[in-house]
Amino acid sequence: MPTVTFLPGFQKVEVPKGDSILSAARKAGLPVNVVCGGIGKCGKCVMFLKSGRTEFDNQRYEEFFTAEELHNGACLACRTYVIDDCQVFVPEQTLIQSQQILIDTLGHTVDLNPSVWKYHLQLKPPTLDNPISDLDRLLDGVHDAGGPVDKRIYAPLELLRRIPSVTRESGWNVTATIALVPGGYRLIHIEKGDTRKKMYGAAVDLGTTTIVVFLRDLTTGQVLGVTSNYNRQISCGEDILSRVNYGKLGGFPKLQALAAESINAAIQTAANAAGVDIDDIYEVVIAGNTIMTHILMGIDPSYMIHEPYVPVVRRALSTSASRIGLSVRPNGGIFIFPAVSDFIGGDIIADILASGMTGSSDISLMIDIGTNYEVVLGNNDWIFACAGAAGPALEGGEVLFGMRANPGAIEKVSIDPATLEPTFSTINNSNPLGICGSGLIDILAELLKACVIDRNGRINTAIPHPRIRPGPYYPEYVLVWKEKAGINKDIVITENDIKNLIMSKASTLAACTVLMNVAGITRTDIKTIYFAGGFGNYINKDHATTIGLIPEVSIDQIKNLGNGAAEGANMALLDRKKRKLLNEIAEKIGYIELNATPSFMDEYTRSAFLPHTDLSLFPTVERALQQCRIRVVNP
Amino acid sequence: MPTVTFLPGFQKVEVPKGDSILSAARKAGLPVNVVCGGIGKCGKCVMFLKSGRTEFDNQRYEEFFTAEELHNGACLACRTYVIDDCQVFVPEQTLIQSQQILIDTLGHTVDLNPSVWKYHLQLKPPTLDNPISDLDRLLDGVHDAGGPVDKRIYAPLELLRRIPSVTRESGWNVTATIALVPGGYRLIHIEKGDTRKKMYGAAVDLGTTTIVVFLRDLTTGQVLGVTSNYNRQISCGEDILSRVNYGKLGGFPKLQALAAESINAAIQTAANAAGVDIDDIYEVVIAGNTIMTHILMGIDPSYMIHEPYVPVVRRALSTSASRIGLSVRPNGGIFIFPAVSDFIGGDIIADILASGMTGSSDISLMIDIGTNYEVVLGNNDWIFACAGAAGPALEGGEVLFGMRANPGAIEKVSIDPATLEPTFSTINNSNPLGICGSGLIDILAELLKACVIDRNGRINTAIPHPRIRPGPYYPEYVLVWKEKAGINKDIVITENDIKNLIMSKASTLAACTVLMNVAGITRTDIKTIYFAGGFGNYINKDHATTIGLIPEVSIDQIKNLGNGAAEGANMALLDRKKRKLLNEIAEKIGYIELNATPSFMDEYTRSAFLPHTDLSLFPTVERALQQCRIRVVNP
Repeated sequence: MPTVTFLPGFQKVEVPKGDSILSAARKAGLPVNVVCGGIGKCGKCVMFLKSGRTEFDNQRYEEFFTAEELHNGACLACRTYVIDDCQVFVPEQTLIQSQQILIDTLGHTVDLNPSVWKYHLQLKPPTLDNPISDLDRLLDGVHDAGGPVDKRIYAPLELLRRIPSVTRESGWNVTATIALVPGGYRLIHIEKGDTRKKMYGAAVDLGTTTIVVFLRDLTTGQVLGVTSNYNRQISCGEDILSRVNYGKLGGFPKLQALAAESINAAIQTAANAAGVDIDDIYEVVIAGNTIMTHILMGIDPSYMIHEPYVPVVRRALSTSASRIGLSVRPNGGIFIFPAVSDFIGGDIIADILASGMTGSSDISLMIDIGTNYEVVLGNNDWIFACAGAAGPALEGGEVLFGMRANPGAIEKVSIDPATLEPTFSTINNSNPLGICGSGLIDILAELLKACVIDRNGRINTAIPHPRIRPGPYYPEYVLVWKEKAGINKDIVITENDIKNLIMSKASTLAACTVLMNVAGITRTDIKTIYFAGGFGNYINKDHATTIGLIPEVSIDQIKNLGNGAAEGANMALLDRKKRKLLNEIAEKIGYIELNATPSFMDEYTRSAFLPHTDLSLFPTVERALQQCRIRVVNP
Repeated sequence: MPTVTFLPGFQKVEVPKGDSILSAARKAGLPVNVVCGGIGKCGKCVMFLKSGRTEFDNQRYEEFFTAEELHNGACLACRTYVIDDCQVFVPEQTLIQSQQILIDTLGHTVDLNPSVWKYHLQLKPPTLDNPISDLDRLLDGVHDAGGPVDKRIYAPLELLRRIPSVTRESGWNVTATIALVPGGYRLIHIEKGDTRKKMYGAAVDLGTTTIVVFLRDLTTGQVLGVTSNYNRQISCGEDILSRVNYGKLGGFPKLQALAAESINAAIQTAANAAGVDIDDIYEVVIAGNTIMTHILMGIDPSYMIHEPYVPVVRRALSTSASRIGLSVRPNGGIFIFPAVSDFIGGDIIADILASGMTGSSDISLMIDIGTNYEVVLGNNDWIFACAGAAGPALEGGEVLFGMRANPGAIEKVSIDPATLEPTFSTINNSNPLGICGSGLIDILAELLKACVIDRNGRINTAIPHPRIRPGPYYPEYVLVWKEKAGINKDIVITENDIKNLIMSKASTLAACTVLMNVAGITRTDIKTIYFAGGFGNYINKDHATTIGLIPEVSIDQIKNLGNGAAEGANMALLDRKKRKLLNEIAEKIGYIELNATPSFMDEYTRSAFLPHTDLSLFPTVERALQQCRIRVVNP
């Protein structure tokens, strides 16, 4: 059968010749956005054929693609059929709409060692000569089939109650499902006949905003579907603090139920699409931030938001699906990632697992940036982590024309240092409405390199250029003239915007520096910088370095982890050995409370420059900025 | 403090001088029947002072006692006060009415090693410098207080949910309760303040007819109360088969609920009397027959009543109280005794434990006789067991004037071999209404020794005596003339009654013999014969030997185990090491299926004589019966 390799994640699947690329993508677990259901009408499943042969039904391609796009291999995945091995590039916008879930971005291979097993047993019926109990007969059968010895298997009452009828009604031809649990094994199901092939699991990234579920076949490891939903708790507050406040007024049970509902809905959608019965889902592995997982478990997280910010539980939790309201096999195992602190939750532990940074002596720095940031520094020997508030600027907040990464957002900007004229692109190529985080970083870096702003972020209004003007309150640079904008205004960036952006990036860089100081290392000791979350996929890494958002390393040392929480959850679902590793990671992490670290403010102050007060820490940037000094000297 | 020793069980307690004997009896765990609440009005708490000094308030003693009884030390326990060490005999009828529960009859001392522990902890509140999670803080505290290490303790969700509020609301001054469970430990409660003294347990004998509950203080081992109830399942059928049939028609959930209700009611009664909050009961240990425990667990036992009579579960079961509807601490541990087969259930395992027969190389034979019998033979090395139907004769069924051991039942009989005139006593000294099991055995033995019946059980109607007559259908012996009876008839025993009694006793003796043959031993290898259940307390052991109900050993080798099920449950409640022993016992038992043992019918036939075809197996009886041969020779 031909194979299809999807880029940039390198997911590889085999499909019968003539299958659509959409069907291959689904098999590979890619959450392709198909509004029309795959009949060639919506034009959302855009992909680019990079190599290999396909056939396609191109009747309406002119509607969807430019000649240049077609030249680059653009196709609709639903209407393109595989002939032989091919490579297909999947643009981010083709994946689930506007949420841009990233999967398997590191192209991980994970061993298939799930913590649940099915044993098909043809048992001998009891006789007067062989009168052992039904349970012992079943568990002896499990042991004979290669399972654990009976004494280590705990059989909960619900299962014991099923045994006498299921065994006899099936003529003693049954399948027993056993799961590894803390302290031993647990019988979690008994069914008639041979059901070994029906053993599924779900890996869940339980985010504050979005829930992502991977449905996987635990007998093959195959991804059967990926779904994402909004976290329905949003109806009780957009950010996590407002939800905790809602909970404190008696709303935690509702928040718990909404979290479970959101996961259930995502699982159900994925299961429906894959033709899987949710009762055949035996394991759910969940990574989420500490407050989210506390709420899901029904544990009051209110105390955690006040000093000293202590979680109720740090260790990984195992329980049964029915106890937290998940609609999978009721005795199915739920595994919740461990947490380190209120801010370093299971999602970050999952990032660490997904990065593999604890698997080698090479030192890695991992950064997850949003309104808050989490920074992790370490290797196989030691790990330090901290967290702090970046403020909303890097996500487009507190910036006059800032906006989220929605259609019409300016996402990429370059500025000609000679003409000071910008070139930019917007999401979906819509008319520009505002600037999202990646665009803001670009602007900052490009204005700095073009010597329009100085290292304090001040705009050089002495430069005689129509785009540089005093502005009503603050000096500003005009990025888009009103005539070209999708709004009835010039789109500008002001000196105040730049100040806010510098404060955000300064906090992040200071956090990195504090961890490096604690560990006694410098930037040259860092082998890899990982961006966790979507952030890294959208920003220009060169520009992030230029402005001093991260310590300077060479660009090829910076990697995007993508959705590390989902990735880590998948790894722990497929390979039980990873779960042990999780607790080891969680225990190894030294959590640095920045508020209790006096040097943090010093580092923050030194970082509140572009890129830093000490240019020797950013040698490449220093060289790039030479021209500004030259230009200042010779205006 | 003076001690009070209660006979016949030799329970010994210390009480302050001046305490009533009733209060001492309660402290000793004796279920004294006190209808009036202990104010000297009902006259039910009759005991006999055998030695030592007491004071008593005798104002109404003439109402309750004859001069002879007073001479024998009769007193009302509630109105008699201890001055110095004394011995007090407790008649059976003083214990819980008509059910005659037996406790601690062997005067066991059991080590106090319960499988639940309370740790009072004054924890350090979390700070920025010491930000470990609430759970780790709690479990570290437990470990520091001498408990298990935190990694071995599983904290269920319900408890995790309590931790943040209970710790903070108490100023981190809490008591944690930890239980040993399969595979590790379990956090089962967290409370504010120091509650170490409030830790109670219940031992339950779950009988088909009666439920007996011992409430015990797990910090001292003290018995705080004993209650017995009818098993409320009786409303669904009197015997176990009719209940299973009721269950098969969809009634098992109701039977489960009734079993739980019956236990709950008994626990509640005992707890109320002792001033114990049922929420402070952390452990319930239950011994019952296999079908009863299956029903209580909600497991369908229907298949077990048909060949090959296989239980669903044999091993000991651990679960939480709330899962089977017991109204104690919801996370409190439930321990259900293991079973060996459908007939050898947890009650018999408890008997074995209580007898201590597996603790030495001496061989013991244990017999529990009712409508069915269970026989166990063994020592510390091997155990064989079997079970069978004795028929109702030994309990007064299938006997013309047979009755249960209720007031008016003739319970003791002797017959003058010279005059053939009987002397008898009835329960409660009421006018005779019929004959209960112990009376029937007496009659059989006395008629045999008086040469009124031969070894086939035939009445020698040639003897010219008014009490010996042909009867309307069968020859009969008149035990009570109508004028002296409480009914308007002569109370007689017929040759047919005797035949039925012989069939019952033959089956029991044959079962003993089969086990002895399997083990390759003879009666002289037996060190002790135990009667389990109430039976042994009421029968004349000499007479039981005379008729060949049991193999002949000397009388001082025959012991009454009393309520071994309750005794065993108490031992397992107080000492967790006994629980391990239980599974060892259960696994060691070789169950002999009598229906599959060809020699059983031969042994039965040989046992269907008084005492047996082979008199050499009963040398004492043989000597006693010499006179009949002599008399026959010289009439």
